[in-house]
Amino acid sequence: MSAEQIAPVSSSSSADVRTSDPAAAPLSPSSRTRLNRSKERARFDRAELYAVLDAGLICHLGVVVDGTPRVIPTGYGRLGDTLYLHGSTGATSLRAGGEVCVTVTHVDGIVLARSVFHHSVNYRSAMIYGVPRLVADPEEKLTGLRVLTEQLAPGQWAAARRPSAKELAATAVLALSLREASVKMRQGPPNDDEEDLARPIWAGVLPLVTAWGDPVPDPLLTPGIPVPRHISER
Amino acid sequence: MSAEQIAPVSSSSSADVRTSDPAAAPLSPSSRTRLNRSKERARFDRAELYAVLDAGLICHLGVVVDGTPRVIPTGYGRLGDTLYLHGSTGATSLRAGGEVCVTVTHVDGIVLARSVFHHSVNYRSAMIYGVPRLVADPEEKLTGLRVLTEQLAPGQWAAARRPSAKELAATAVLALSLREASVKMRQGPPNDDEEDLARPIWAGVLPLVTAWGDPVPDPLLTPGIPVPRHISER
Repeated sequence: MSAEQIAPVSSSSSADVRTSDPAAAPLSPSSRTRLNRSKERARFDRAELYAVLDAGLICHLGVVVDGTPRVIPTGYGRLGDTLYLHGSTGATSLRAGGEVCVTVTHVDGIVLARSVFHHSVNYRSAMIYGVPRLVADPEEKLTGLRVLTEQLAPGQWAAARRPSAKELAATAVLALSLREASVKMRQGPPNDDEEDLARPIWAGVLPLVTAWGDPVPDPLLTPGIPVPRHISER
Repeated sequence: MSAEQIAPVSSSSSADVRTSDPAAAPLSPSSRTRLNRSKERARFDRAELYAVLDAGLICHLGVVVDGTPRVIPTGYGRLGDTLYLHGSTGATSLRAGGEVCVTVTHVDGIVLARSVFHHSVNYRSAMIYGVPRLVADPEEKLTGLRVLTEQLAPGQWAAARRPSAKELAATAVLALSLREASVKMRQGPPNDDEEDLARPIWAGVLPLVTAWGDPVPDPLLTPGIPVPRHISER
C-alpha cells in the first residue's frame, strides 16, 4: 500500500539469519505455491517477491488454532530471505505453533469489463508458507524489531526511543523463511470475450491510489518540535 | 479501502438468506472472537461490522488445506447477515470445505510514537468465522454474484452483460453467515508512556488515504463510449 522501499539494513551477524544471495534463487513452486488457477498470473522472479513485500505495510497471517483457520492482520518486515513478524508473547496466534501462511496484497484497481463475469481486480500479492522460528537471540530480536519498525515507519528506528529490556521481554519476534513463496499479480485492461467487444458498454480500469496525508501531531506533543523530514517527505 | 457503500439491494426471496433485522443483534463474542489482547479495541455494534465490510474491496479468506493454513485475497459482498464469496468451481481453496475465517482490514494511518514499542497502525478490521454454504439455488447464486459485483463495482450489475448459463456453471458462490464475527479498530494518537512524553521526538499519526484515479479506458473500447457517471463519480 506504500511505494516506500524499506531502508537498506546491514546483515545481522547471527548465523540463523539467511544472508546468502537470495536474489539468485528463483521461486521454486511447491505443490502449494504452484498455481492451479490463472497460471499466467504467476511470477517466478525472487525480485518480484521482494518488491511486493517491501511495498506493503501489513500482512495477513494465517494460523490454525484448534483445527480451524484464523487470519490476523499484523505488521512484518523483511531482511534478505527472512520475514520478521511480532506480537505480544501472550498472543494466542503466536502460541499456536505449527505452519503459517503469510499473505501481502496490494489492490491497484478495479477491472470493469463489458461482462459481469470478467470483472476483476488488478493486484499484486505474495504468499509465504513455513514454520516460523521464535527468535531467541537478543541481537537478532533487535534486528527483527528494527526491520519491522522500518517497514512501517522508515527512519523511526533512529528517531524514536529503542525498546527497553522490559519491552523486549514482552515482545515475541518470529522469523519466517521466504523459501516457500509465490507471487501472483494481475495488471492491465479487462479480458472480455471476443463476442462482447462490440457491445456499447464502457470498459477499462478504475485505478486505486494510496497516498500519505498530512502528518497529524499528537495533542500531547511538546510545542516547537517540527515534523522530521523522513516523515514529511515520505 | 474504499469509502463507497454498497448500493442498497433488495432481500432475496430465498428462505436460506437471512433477512431478519440483523442490526438489532449485537456481536456476541465466542471464545474465538472475544479479544484476549487490547480489549479496548473491540467493538460490539453490528452496525460497525457492516461499516467495515461495506467499505472494503477484498477480503483475506483463510482455509485449512491438508492441516495447514492458506490465506487467499478474494472478492466478497454482503447482503444482510450473509457474506458472499466466489471462485472457480475448481479452486482448491473452495473445495477444501470446513471452517473458514474471513478478514477485512483497512489501514488508516501509521502511529508514530516517541518510543519504538508504541509504534502502531490505525486500522479497522472485521473477522468472520463459520462454515460456508455452497449456494445451489440459481436465484440465490445470481443474488450472490450481484452483491459481489456491486461491492467491487457499484452500478456495474446494471451496466454490464449478466452471466450466461455457462459462466454461472463455472462459478461457485459461497454464503457465510455473519453470526460469529468480531470488529477491532485502533484510531487516534500514539499511547506513549508518561515518562516519554517530554522527549524531544515528534509524535503523531501519518494518515494513509486511498482514492480513485482517473478511469483508464480499455484499448479495445469502441470509440465514442463515454465513462458512465457511476464510474466517473465514484
